[in-house]
Amino acid sequence: MAHQVAVIGGDGIGPEVVAEALKVVAAAGVELATTDFELGGARYLRDGTVLPDEVLDELRAFDAILLGAVGTPEVPPGVIERGLLLKMRFALDQYVNQRPFTEPAKGIDMVVIRENTEGTYAGEGGFLRHGTPHEVATQGSVNTRMGVERCVRYAFDLAQQRRGHLTLVHKTNVLTYAGDLWQRTFDEVAAEFPDVETAYNHVDAACIYFVQDPGRYDVIVTDNLFGDILTDLGGAVSGGIGLASSGNLNPDRTSPSMFEPVHGSAPDIAGQKKANPLAAILSAALMLDLLDEGAAADRIRTACAAVAAQLDPSGASDGPRPTTTPEIGDAVADLL
Amino acid sequence: MAHQVAVIGGDGIGPEVVAEALKVVAAAGVELATTDFELGGARYLRDGTVLPDEVLDELRAFDAILLGAVGTPEVPPGVIERGLLLKMRFALDQYVNQRPFTEPAKGIDMVVIRENTEGTYAGEGGFLRHGTPHEVATQGSVNTRMGVERCVRYAFDLAQQRRGHLTLVHKTNVLTYAGDLWQRTFDEVAAEFPDVETAYNHVDAACIYFVQDPGRYDVIVTDNLFGDILTDLGGAVSGGIGLASSGNLNPDRTSPSMFEPVHGSAPDIAGQKKANPLAAILSAALMLDLLDEGAAADRIRTACAAVAAQLDPSGASDGPRPTTTPEIGDAVADLL
Ligand SMILES: CC(C)[C@H](C(=O)O)[C@@H](O)C(=O)O
Ligand SMILES: CC(C)[C@H](C(=O)O)[C@@H](O)C(=O)O
Repeated sequence: MAHQVAVIGGDGIGPEVVAEALKVVAAAGVELATTDFELGGARYLRDGTVLPDEVLDELRAFDAILLGAVGTPEVPPGVIERGLLLKMRFALDQYVNQRPFTEPAKGIDMVVIRENTEGTYAGEGGFLRHGTPHEVATQGSVNTRMGVERCVRYAFDLAQQRRGHLTLVHKTNVLTYAGDLWQRTFDEVAAEFPDVETAYNHVDAACIYFVQDPGRYDVIVTDNLFGDILTDLGGAVSGGIGLASSGNLNPDRTSPSMFEPVHGSAPDIAGQKKANPLAAILSAALMLDLLDEGAAADRIRTACAAVAAQLDPSGASDGPRPTTTPEIGDAVADLL
Repeated sequence: MAHQVAVIGGDGIGPEVVAEALKVVAAAGVELATTDFELGGARYLRDGTVLPDEVLDELRAFDAILLGAVGTPEVPPGVIERGLLLKMRFALDQYVNQRPFTEPAKGIDMVVIRENTEGTYAGEGGFLRHGTPHEVATQGSVNTRMGVERCVRYAFDLAQQRRGHLTLVHKTNVLTYAGDLWQRTFDEVAAEFPDVETAYNHVDAACIYFVQDPGRYDVIVTDNLFGDILTDLGGAVSGGIGLASSGNLNPDRTSPSMFEPVHGSAPDIAGQKKANPLAAILSAALMLDLLDEGAAADRIRTACAAVAAQLDPSGASDGPRPTTTPEIGDAVADLL
C-alpha cells in the first residue's frame, strides 16, 4: 500500500527541491500517495493564514509530511517560522529533530539529535515597562524531565545502532538549572546503555571541535537552541547547508513526522533551477527510514553521496557534471 | 606613574602565559606596578574559598586586572567559573566583553562585543518537582533596556572608529521577547550613528558565515550566551583559540576591567612550557588600550602578528621558530 504523504512545497526554491525529492523516491521504487498543501509565505500574503487548525488536523491523517522551504521577504520575520514550522513541531509532538552530517574527506559522520518541543522555543517570557528606559525583557527556557528523557533515550538508542558514542552538549557551568536536569537525565539513561560510551562538551567548546575535530563525534544530543546553532554549524563544516537534511520526528508515531532540508527558501534564486535539491532528497530518505523503507533510504543516500562528489568542484569527475536542479535530481535517480 | 595592575595567574598554564604578557608589556616600555592574587582552583582546594568579598574589594582599587586562566579538574565544573569569573564580571560591572579576531590569510578582522552582565548569565531559574518524573527546570534570560543599550552603544562607538559596520546577532524569530528588546534598542541607537552601516543575522546563520565568509564582519554585537558561543567559534576559524584575547570592560571606569585569554587552564600541559602565550599577551594589549597606552598596545599587536606568522607551520619562515612559552614571549619582546 502506498504511504500517504502530505507535501508542502512552500516558497522560493521549496517546490523545486521537493519535486526532485519525490522523483528520487519514485525511482527508488517506493510508492507514495501525495497530497499537496499550499502553505507558507505566499498563502499568508494571499489570505492572512499560516497554518489554520483545520489544516493541522488534516495533516494528522498522513503517514509523513515532506516540506521544501517556507518564508518570503515580504512577510515579517518569525511569522511563518513560528506559525508553521514551530506550530507543527509542537502540535504534532515531533520531539526529536534529527540532523545527520557526513563529509568523508574530513572524517565527519555524525548525527545531531536536537530536542524539538521545549527549551527556549516554548516561547516563555514577557516584557516589564515595555518601551521605557526601565524595560526588562525576559525569555525563559522550559525543560521537563519527560521531554528531556525521551529525547536523550532516542539518542542513546541511535548511538547504540551506530558506533556506540554519545556526546551531551550543553552549558552546565552557567545554565545551572536546565543544565543540571539535562546532565542528571543523561547520566541516568546512560546507566541503561552500558555499551554506549558517553562524553560531555560545553556548547562553546563543541563549536571549536566542530571546526577543528568533527571526526570525534558519532551522535550528539542537545537542547533546542543549542541544536539550532550546532546544526547550522554542522552544515557549514560538512559540505555546506546544501546537503543538510532534517527530520522532525515523533518516534512514538502518535502523529506524523515532518521532513525538511535545513536550508531556507532562497527567494533570490527561486524559479531559476539553481537550487541544490540534495538536502531535500536526503530529507526524503530520512522520511523513508521512518516509513520502514530503510533499504530504499540507504540506496538514496549512497546515490546522493556519489552525486555530491560529482558536484564538488575540487573533486575529480569524468563526464559532465549535473548543474540544474532537475539535472541533479535526475543524476541521483539514474543511480538507483 | 606606573599603572596599578592586579595579576591573577590562576591555575594550569595561567601563571606561565601571564608571565610572558608582563614581560612583553615591560619590553614595550609601559610601567606596571603589579600585585599578585592567588585565586583559582588551587586556592579553592586549599581553603574552600573562591573570591571572598574582601578580596573583591581589594581588587576594586586597581587600574586593571590581568588573569591567566582558572580551573582545575579536581574542582567540580562551574564552581570557579561562576565564583570567580562571573562574580567579577557582575560585581565590577564589566558590561562589555570585547573579543577581537584577525586572520589576514582569510580576510578576518572583526571584533565581537558581547554583553557581559545579564542574559542567561543572570542565573535566573529553578526547579519544580526536583528529581521526580514530573520535574521542570527553568532557566531565564533577563535583559534590561539599560544593559542592552550601553552595550549596543559601545559597539556603535567602536564600529564608528573602525570600518563603520555593525552586525546585531540574535535569534529574534524565536526569542521574541529578548530579541525584540535587542532589535528595538539596536535600531534606536543606530539612528544616532547614521555613518555606521548595520546588519542583522540570526545566530545560526552567523555560525555559517563565521565558517564560510567571516570577512563580511567588522563589529558584531550580541548577548551574553550567543557571544560566548560565537567567540569560541571566532577563535576556531581565525588561527585557533591560542590567539583569542578578551577584555571584560567597564567602559565607564567606575571599577577595574579584567583581561584574560579566552583559552582555559589546560592542566594537561601545565608546567611544560608548551602553552602559547600570545592570547595572554594580546589580552594585555587590550588592557593597555584601556590604560590609555594605545600606542604600546598597537606595537604589541603588530609584534604578535609577526610571531604568529612565524609559528604557523604552513607559513614560510626563515630561521628557527620559537617553540616554548618563554621563547614565544621573548620573540614578541625582541620585536618591540
Ligand atoms: C526557522 C527557524 C524557526 C528554525 C529554528 O530555529 O528551529 C530553523 O532555524 C531550523 O533550524 O529549523
Ligand atoms: C568559563 C565560562 C563561565 C566562560 C563563559 O561562559 O563566559 C567562558 O566560556 C568565557 O567565554 O569566558
